[in-house]
Amino acid sequence: MRVVRLFHEQDVRYGLADVSTVTLISDEPFSAWEPEGIVPLPHAQLLAPTVPTKIVCAGLNYRAHATEMGHDLLDEPVIFLKPPTSVTGHGAEIRIPEGVETVDYEAELALVIGRRTHNVTPEQARTCVLGCTCANDVTSRAHQRKDGQWTRAKGFDSFCPLGPWVETDIDPCDTTLESYVNGELRQSTSTSDMIFDPYELVSFVSHVMTLLPGDVVLTGTPSGVGPMRAGDVVEIKVGGIGSLVNRVV
Amino acid sequence: MRVVRLFHEQDVRYGLADVSTVTLISDEPFSAWEPEGIVPLPHAQLLAPTVPTKIVCAGLNYRAHATEMGHDLLDEPVIFLKPPTSVTGHGAEIRIPEGVETVDYEAELALVIGRRTHNVTPEQARTCVLGCTCANDVTSRAHQRKDGQWTRAKGFDSFCPLGPWVETDIDPCDTTLESYVNGELRQSTSTSDMIFDPYELVSFVSHVMTLLPGDVVLTGTPSGVGPMRAGDVVEIKVGGIGSLVNRVV
Repeated sequence: MRVVRLFHEQDVRYGLADVSTVTLISDEPFSAWEPEGIVPLPHAQLLAPTVPTKIVCAGLNYRAHATEMGHDLLDEPVIFLKPPTSVTGHGAEIRIPEGVETVDYEAELALVIGRRTHNVTPEQARTCVLGCTCANDVTSRAHQRKDGQWTRAKGFDSFCPLGPWVETDIDPCDTTLESYVNGELRQSTSTSDMIFDPYELVSFVSHVMTLLPGDVVLTGTPSGVGPMRAGDVVEIKVGGIGSLVNRVV
Repeated sequence: MRVVRLFHEQDVRYGLADVSTVTLISDEPFSAWEPEGIVPLPHAQLLAPTVPTKIVCAGLNYRAHATEMGHDLLDEPVIFLKPPTSVTGHGAEIRIPEGVETVDYEAELALVIGRRTHNVTPEQARTCVLGCTCANDVTSRAHQRKDGQWTRAKGFDSFCPLGPWVETDIDPCDTTLESYVNGELRQSTSTSDMIFDPYELVSFVSHVMTLLPGDVVLTGTPSGVGPMRAGDVVEIKVGGIGSLVNRVV
């Protein structure tokens, strides 16, 4: 099932997409809902598929990326937060802030939480995830190096593209994750190369902070990160989901 | 003016407090509102006075605390985020997580944003702040040292007490800030000792991420941080506002 969020007749709605149509639903996908009308998919104005109260991210969670950044492998996850204002959708622009020349793409698999999640085991975490979407953890590498804390580097408005939809029928522990800049492959891995798998991450985070419906857990980026410049088109592609495409301005 | 948030007749409401009463208001304090009835202040069940979409915190923003933590003085602010789920109110319990023996108190002046704030100057920031409240940036020092990123150390549920109310008539740039553990003074400073003053911080953050009504900016803690143990009662006191009191469990 593909859960979309869209702008429809002056309102923001959720719906379920198939290859050609969106069936609008009466409530949020976390609640009980009824179908309510059909919109052709090509005409749907897709928005970021969730409105998280928080975006919790795992750093250095792929072996090859930890090595490329000069870090030892972690014995437990390192987490950080991106602000909700950094979220943008499929097709929207990534805006490079004033005074910054380039920002880096980081392809990530995003988990969307479906229910209140507190102190769960990895096994229990399976029932707490609504589904998965594609994410780009856009990063100003110069700010990341300077600040030590990663909040500014990864927290600018538009630095968290999410989309195009939440796929509920996918195994996040074993799918492909790729990024392309102007059509050229830059990152390519299997999510099975994560140090901590998606459900271990949700379990870990849930022992720190309570996760709420719509919250997002970003599961880290593989090796091959690199710069994007104004005018570039960046695509994050996850097997079984599809592609998140954004232009840099 | 003291803006409170309270639980009243099975509902969450905002109100304006004087020494003995709370006047309920018809909407959020960021909007136009009408007065709607009176509650005696001693009977009011106060909640955290705001529901932020994000809590942006400045690290090492007092000269003496930067020195005590072994850091050089900053040439620009370092920011990090606490999750909204860390917020708790005046009189609520601070819960030490499993496997942690002590957590540190950090007295802070909190700014509550009153309007959408994006790319403002320090002078413009004055009109974007609704008012101020007391905050305790509760920190697991062991997790802070281990992770490098401060999110886990400062992000556990109940690690951001805020309250008791938002005082709108206060100069945040020159007031007193103190903390007490079991009645014993531990931190005492003037907010004029900040490296970056409150309006410079709001301006800086607004050039990274758009601040929204109800969002909170924590302005850093002075020297004298130290541990709290289960059973301790911690008070954060700001001149012109009052005291935020929480018990540790």
